[in-house]
Amino acid sequence: MNPLDEAMQRRSAAAYVAYGSSADADIRYLTHFQVTDPLVYVKKKGEQGIIIVSTMEYERAKRESMVQVMSRNEAGFFEFLKEDPAHREKATARMIAALAGGDVLVPPQFPFLLGKELETFFPVSVEKEAVKGMRAVKSAEELNHLRLVQRATDEAMKTALTLIKKSIPRGEMLVYRDKPLTSEDVKAALQKHLIDHGCIGRDTIVSCGPDTALPHLTGKGPLHPDEPIIIDIFPQAEDSGYFADMTRTVVKGEPSKEITEMYLAVQEAQSRAVSRIRAGISGADIHQDVVDFFKERGYESDSQGFMHNLGHGVGLEVHEIPVLGAGGESLQAGNVVTVEPGLYYPEHGGVRLEDMGAVTDGGFERFTRCEEILIL
Amino acid sequence: MNPLDEAMQRRSAAAYVAYGSSADADIRYLTHFQVTDPLVYVKKKGEQGIIIVSTMEYERAKRESMVQVMSRNEAGFFEFLKEDPAHREKATARMIAALAGGDVLVPPQFPFLLGKELETFFPVSVEKEAVKGMRAVKSAEELNHLRLVQRATDEAMKTALTLIKKSIPRGEMLVYRDKPLTSEDVKAALQKHLIDHGCIGRDTIVSCGPDTALPHLTGKGPLHPDEPIIIDIFPQAEDSGYFADMTRTVVKGEPSKEITEMYLAVQEAQSRAVSRIRAGISGADIHQDVVDFFKERGYESDSQGFMHNLGHGVGLEVHEIPVLGAGGESLQAGNVVTVEPGLYYPEHGGVRLEDMGAVTDGGFERFTRCEEILIL
Repeated sequence: MNPLDEAMQRRSAAAYVAYGSSADADIRYLTHFQVTDPLVYVKKKGEQGIIIVSTMEYERAKRESMVQVMSRNEAGFFEFLKEDPAHREKATARMIAALAGGDVLVPPQFPFLLGKELETFFPVSVEKEAVKGMRAVKSAEELNHLRLVQRATDEAMKTALTLIKKSIPRGEMLVYRDKPLTSEDVKAALQKHLIDHGCIGRDTIVSCGPDTALPHLTGKGPLHPDEPIIIDIFPQAEDSGYFADMTRTVVKGEPSKEITEMYLAVQEAQSRAVSRIRAGISGADIHQDVVDFFKERGYESDSQGFMHNLGHGVGLEVHEIPVLGAGGESLQAGNVVTVEPGLYYPEHGGVRLEDMGAVTDGGFERFTRCEEILIL
Repeated sequence: MNPLDEAMQRRSAAAYVAYGSSADADIRYLTHFQVTDPLVYVKKKGEQGIIIVSTMEYERAKRESMVQVMSRNEAGFFEFLKEDPAHREKATARMIAALAGGDVLVPPQFPFLLGKELETFFPVSVEKEAVKGMRAVKSAEELNHLRLVQRATDEAMKTALTLIKKSIPRGEMLVYRDKPLTSEDVKAALQKHLIDHGCIGRDTIVSCGPDTALPHLTGKGPLHPDEPIIIDIFPQAEDSGYFADMTRTVVKGEPSKEITEMYLAVQEAQSRAVSRIRAGISGADIHQDVVDFFKERGYESDSQGFMHNLGHGVGLEVHEIPVLGAGGESLQAGNVVTVEPGLYYPEHGGVRLEDMGAVTDGGFERFTRCEEILIL
């Protein structure tokens, strides 16, 4: 039985309702439709899902989405709006109520205002698990989408690494073709490579030196020799909507003793974690094992050291369940997760290595192929 | 007085609370902080806003955001979580309640589940206008960001038009450097140009022939001579977060009589609308005038013909208020809007022309510079 139908049955609800654009990963997952403006999704118990879109999007939605399509006009929206033109949410709620015909389940991120309006018609409860749970376990088709994005990401990473490798240390700078090589240059090269493979990279991280001590600083300006450079890419395939996520840390020249030691520890932590991943083990356990391992090596897990989770699910969102961290749930075959230990110290800089792959019954199918080399 | 403080005063609320990542334009506007995972924003009446972020984001947020920063740890989140580890929303709500200290206002898109949890502590009301209103009227700095994105967009459009212009009709295909020129080629050229200017274009439309009759079909495959090609780009500047939005329709070769007439009508509709825009006139009036104009020329505004709004605000979202369409509000100086009449017929194809600019007291400052030429 479809998990949404199960949830409706268990909770005596007549319909499940979602609202948003395809930037909401649940909407994209349930409809396979890419749209900038929000739409309404209604699935009655035991029936197919249906989306309600503007007239302008109607024909395209029929062609591109995998659900039934109704225009707002057909769904009575404009009739309802006439009664109180200043309150579009009220008209939207009435339209939804007419389609749902009874108690409604919504996802946690359902808009508060629309939820309150909907409550004037029927009881509204939040269903936290069903869609997130469906999304967390990838189908064969989804796994293929994810492998493809990771392949493009690997190639893009190689482009970036080659650029850094070919650069020449000159004083404080890395120089490429007689110009200082900057974070911006490397990001642009990466992003262009991704575009040629139908992917979009945003908020890409190419940070250097002290900046690497802050995990999500995106970095700017010239890159320097003998200092850690963190490259973290998490592109999305435009067609499928699936993400990949990977990180490498490199040094052009001579890394400090501390960075070398941190690198080796991070690499070992990653191998340990990867070798333990399989269906049935909890994300919390795998994370804790890495915390313990770092502790043995003299690295803390606090506001410095290993200061983030070991990993996260990846799919139509770059961060989704399961969590490989405190409170992390039991892993299931078909989860796609990152394994990304990192160590960060203001005085030394940061090191992070991140691979992505699928949890299987027997272990972990690593999608990431790009090798890990500290010194370029 | 700050519009949020005014709203709190008017509605006897102690605090305004928002929740989301910087993909939520309100969050980005209020914090100037780019972040993938959701954060909590709390502004008490008469005080500065504050964000609560994870330990990992704490230092970066202090450096990059324009608000006060607190870690979840400092805000007591993990203490609250211990009491009921399975319910993170409950702990988040308790943390917010402790910071707010009284009745709370939230934006319409506030997550339903978190809102319900928050209601167990204090009354929660929706404030629809304050932040949207602030965002709709751009500051001098915001206008500059928007001009810059539009400039990059104009240049990217020229790249695309040059590619099509240089192509050679050969049978049913346009050929460039001995290969069929495709929608994908033109999109890639556009997107790479945008990357060199720090912008990201996604869902870019390069559609041709019958596909142009569906306004938001993104298009694929070879481009054809003598048929309309619609290019619609709406990139976002990575640094500032602001969007631009523009559309051109071109034909390589000989357009049909119908497309030529539609083009001239759309161009005239755009000129009329632009000449009427000024602070004080309503978006509904300007739209209706275009509907009337098209009707005179024999084009309907229904499920074909002019099937969408005349325009929309642009800022940290590509579609925001004000609306130039039915129900559209009075325009204000500092609004940045598109003017994009279009005509669509399954048997002929589509034509759309879209410029963007700022509403001023005296008229419209057009940001878009790229000329409008049908035949390349």
